[in-house]
Amino acid sequence: MPPVLVDSTLLADNLERIAEEIDEGFDRLLPIPQDARARLVEAMRYAAIGGGKRLRPLLLVATAEMHGTNRVTALRAAVAIESIHVYSLVHDDLPCMDDDEMRHGKQTLHRAFDEATAVLAGDSLHALAFEILANPETIGDPFVRAELLRVLGTAAGMNGMAGGQMMDIIAESETFDLGTVTRLQQLKTGALLAAAVEMGAILGHAPPESRTQLRAYARDLGLAFQIADDLLDHEGDEEAAGKALRKDAAAGKATFVSLLGPERARTQAQALVEQAIAHLAAHGQEADLLRAIARYVVERNH
Amino acid sequence: MPPVLVDSTLLADNLERIAEEIDEGFDRLLPIPQDARARLVEAMRYAAIGGGKRLRPLLLVATAEMHGTNRVTALRAAVAIESIHVYSLVHDDLPCMDDDEMRHGKQTLHRAFDEATAVLAGDSLHALAFEILANPETIGDPFVRAELLRVLGTAAGMNGMAGGQMMDIIAESETFDLGTVTRLQQLKTGALLAAAVEMGAILGHAPPESRTQLRAYARDLGLAFQIADDLLDHEGDEEAAGKALRKDAAAGKATFVSLLGPERARTQAQALVEQAIAHLAAHGQEADLLRAIARYVVERNH
Repeated sequence: MPPVLVDSTLLADNLERIAEEIDEGFDRLLPIPQDARARLVEAMRYAAIGGGKRLRPLLLVATAEMHGTNRVTALRAAVAIESIHVYSLVHDDLPCMDDDEMRHGKQTLHRAFDEATAVLAGDSLHALAFEILANPETIGDPFVRAELLRVLGTAAGMNGMAGGQMMDIIAESETFDLGTVTRLQQLKTGALLAAAVEMGAILGHAPPESRTQLRAYARDLGLAFQIADDLLDHEGDEEAAGKALRKDAAAGKATFVSLLGPERARTQAQALVEQAIAHLAAHGQEADLLRAIARYVVERNH
Repeated sequence: MPPVLVDSTLLADNLERIAEEIDEGFDRLLPIPQDARARLVEAMRYAAIGGGKRLRPLLLVATAEMHGTNRVTALRAAVAIESIHVYSLVHDDLPCMDDDEMRHGKQTLHRAFDEATAVLAGDSLHALAFEILANPETIGDPFVRAELLRVLGTAAGMNGMAGGQMMDIIAESETFDLGTVTRLQQLKTGALLAAAVEMGAILGHAPPESRTQLRAYARDLGLAFQIADDLLDHEGDEEAAGKALRKDAAAGKATFVSLLGPERARTQAQALVEQAIAHLAAHGQEADLLRAIARYVVERNH
């Protein structure tokens, strides 16, 4: 069997499996209360269940399992990081931010519910991530718990995702060069993708040299992911994406594609994926899933 | 010297001191970065520095010091809980929520900056709280760190503050009875006030029986605080408050004052304060500050 086929079967199975597991995780964590908070939890469920590639959870679980962590524990942390990702999408879609109407092929949360509920559901998903990780039932070892919280908190805040989102807003009115766009994307999406790998490594008690390699893998993967995103935004299919495309160009925002052109952008994304995979050279078969994920981020059609 | 005078001097000194310390804490944590995130951090500083009673930090530090925790450590956790409080005010003031123009005597954040920046600054202050607590430099013991994170995460999320805020939004369109309003307020403001005391007790390694008493103190204090807030909203001075008042009545929202009438509300707030203080009976002079805080929450004019 040629290696590409092995990869894609391995990946497809894992994407399907993690999607179910994350849906189950949110379902279990979000029972609808018998009081006026019902609407809030319904909104959280609407945003969190049944959509998205679950790339961050997959990266976290793949890294943790590669180091021998049991899947049940890894999945709890995976739901936490996905909760941060979902909250960020809910807030990014708000009218005062990107003002998006569609997400994952359905109405955005503020359209399906209302803006106030979307702000609060985002805030509650944000808090939920930390509630999960701080719960002794999630992870018994308090040191591991505190480390996971540190990594996720840093990746989510002003020195990570939220800081990148601010730069992204400013990108509409200023002309960013390639260095600034790279920095923006490292914060906006790279920080959380890197946190997924880092959290898996923490759970798996990965040795320091392995951590360094995994960090390098995650950095290259994050950048490749964003270049691929820009390419999909430039030439992708709105139906497959489940959201509006080509908004960056309309807003005059600098992206990898606008700065490099589609050809060079594609070449660079591919080079980054090869580089990401090269960082896993010390590992055998147990890293095949991480390799397959790296290929997937540039080959996906949504 | 009569005890009331002792109390008020003790309290005034402590309110002044904690206000300075929290401002310093935020100032140190929020240096303005040399990139496009500058606007985000400026917005966070605008919201976090130089305003508010700092009641949650004071409760936390008073409880921690009462149990022998050093003030520097307690202050770090105090900045974290205030960061949650400030983020909640920023989001509550948004046009899609309470649509407020003034806060702490100055323009609300979305008016001074813009809505997108206010959403992101709130999100970043939310994450900052967890970043602070998860940092090993804040608290060395990982078990204490994880416990603080657990308590704060729960108090902030759907089973605490954010859940209460959702109920508060629904209160505008439904007619809540006294039990529901009590539950709403226990979540919306009570949860975080209780978390402040609980976090102080965790830092101070307070024994279980002491924790139970402190929890009871915090519960009564939280309710007294909210009744006093409703009374201030009903008959207070907008200038002293630094924000618009009487919005609840205009929105037809049920409050303690609308349900009980101002006289009964006042009597009940006073009774709750006495009850809160009674829970501290096992403690001597070292609990004087907590007693003074309890009196303050119903005697304040803003």
